[in-house]
Amino acid sequence: MNECDKCGSPEIIIKKKQSGQKLCSKCFIESTKKKVLKDIRRQNLIEKGDKVLLGLSGGKDSVMLLDILSTLKNRGIIDLVAVTIDEGIEGYREEGVELAIKNAEKYGVEHRVVSFKQYFGTTLDKIIQNNSLDVRRNACTYCGVFRRWIFNRVSKEVGATKIATGHNLDDETQSIVMSYLEGNIQNLTRIGPKSQSKSDKFTVKIKPLREIPEKEIGLYVIAKELDVHFAGCPYAGESFRAEIGTILKQLTANHPTIMYSTLRGFDKIKPVLKKEFATESVFEVCEICGEPSASRLCKACSFLKQWEDQG
Amino acid sequence: MNECDKCGSPEIIIKKKQSGQKLCSKCFIESTKKKVLKDIRRQNLIEKGDKVLLGLSGGKDSVMLLDILSTLKNRGIIDLVAVTIDEGIEGYREEGVELAIKNAEKYGVEHRVVSFKQYFGTTLDKIIQNNSLDVRRNACTYCGVFRRWIFNRVSKEVGATKIATGHNLDDETQSIVMSYLEGNIQNLTRIGPKSQSKSDKFTVKIKPLREIPEKEIGLYVIAKELDVHFAGCPYAGESFRAEIGTILKQLTANHPTIMYSTLRGFDKIKPVLKKEFATESVFEVCEICGEPSASRLCKACSFLKQWEDQG
Repeated sequence: MNECDKCGSPEIIIKKKQSGQKLCSKCFIESTKKKVLKDIRRQNLIEKGDKVLLGLSGGKDSVMLLDILSTLKNRGIIDLVAVTIDEGIEGYREEGVELAIKNAEKYGVEHRVVSFKQYFGTTLDKIIQNNSLDVRRNACTYCGVFRRWIFNRVSKEVGATKIATGHNLDDETQSIVMSYLEGNIQNLTRIGPKSQSKSDKFTVKIKPLREIPEKEIGLYVIAKELDVHFAGCPYAGESFRAEIGTILKQLTANHPTIMYSTLRGFDKIKPVLKKEFATESVFEVCEICGEPSASRLCKACSFLKQWEDQG
Repeated sequence: MNECDKCGSPEIIIKKKQSGQKLCSKCFIESTKKKVLKDIRRQNLIEKGDKVLLGLSGGKDSVMLLDILSTLKNRGIIDLVAVTIDEGIEGYREEGVELAIKNAEKYGVEHRVVSFKQYFGTTLDKIIQNNSLDVRRNACTYCGVFRRWIFNRVSKEVGATKIATGHNLDDETQSIVMSYLEGNIQNLTRIGPKSQSKSDKFTVKIKPLREIPEKEIGLYVIAKELDVHFAGCPYAGESFRAEIGTILKQLTANHPTIMYSTLRGFDKIKPVLKKEFATESVFEVCEICGEPSASRLCKACSFLKQWEDQG
């Protein structure tokens, strides 16, 4: 029967391949929200009194997370501030910033737009264009380092105790599989729903959507008619991550639970890998920016220096 | 310059993408053989005085391994017996058996052809045809169980101390990635160049070609003009292994060292996984066949029983 398994409505919008569960729009929204809130509790991602900095790009993942975290804010459990980073990607970022502003207003959430330009004096476009093919191919690596630097810096400026990002099941499985294939054990020891603060100068990062497939996030924002930025980053197509993402999506067609089994297996072996392989970094202070760093210069400053030296 | 890096010959047959090394046919054969013999020593796969049972399908991997192991036999280091299993796959296995016989004769190696029919009273074709779609899709799983059973039984019949198979780098990386994606940690604790004998009734299995890419094995048999069975098993196309194999081949085009990095990473974490997760099986004796087994019936006998019960 084509009826919602929860309320009996004939208008189902999803039949989950893994469980066979059928849900109407309203029950899908409710059950997804409930799952995320349960994951947050189960993994102790957020505590009462936390001030959460939400990385709000304006894309589907971060807007869905805004939707869910704002319920925690409205219940007086957390304080919430949304931060949008303008990396300086022409023809792409402008619309995301606009939608981030619109959504933050709609949910009545404090919002800051910050930029690479403001913190680093340049844009991602400029960094990538003036650089070698190798840098262009690894745009995501560079951008990721700069974004993490900004989130961490801003979290201290606003007094946030957690940084929440919209990483979903697809993103997380990609990271795991990439690290497996690269034999990058250090990376494996760091992937997870909640960062272990290696220094008290790093704000703890959390991923509340880590167990929600990208497809269901797309469905959530459609079902709830959220206004989000659906375009993909122009640099993403060239990355190893994108290759692995395509492969995992293709595998999911024949093996609907494969991302879950990859994640479950990884979550079982990760504590063991961490115990055995995680290097205890001694943190110094970056000579240029003053942020904590494993070496004389932090990654962001050493990338910037490389780039300036070339220019 | 297009010259062999070792002897200067202008007729190079390989330029290795990972190292850039260029080799002529003769030097490629020599260096590959040397690498395999070095891997055997380094990993202590074979000791002086071993009697090695070589699983000889007649395909490129096992014939190359015959070529290399026969040099150890000719030097008086090991005793060698080749065993070919006729699974009963019509239109496919006959040619493999023929080429196995021909090659064993050529190298002057003792050879036995044994069959599913002889040990189990039936053929793989019959088992698969009379069964459900699920069994057909997992033909490799069933066949693998039966083949391992036969190799182990025959190794005791001929007094072999090691069972050598032609698994190559592609095969091994497939097994690793499949287990990662399935979250199958028990499997991960068992993958490696040399089985740890869980019971003295299991002959130790070794994989001397584990670090040689399938492509280089193909090139070796062509360069050495070995007469091998190049057809693929008709059942292989449907398996999860085949899907993963295709993906890894595609990734290798852009990332030439990816199978090596996957293997290296796995080999580093495997001892840790083994220590933490490997279940110490208590072995009993299978009620039907008398071989060691983790439960009342061994896997081969329980598959056969399932099949007989259905027929």
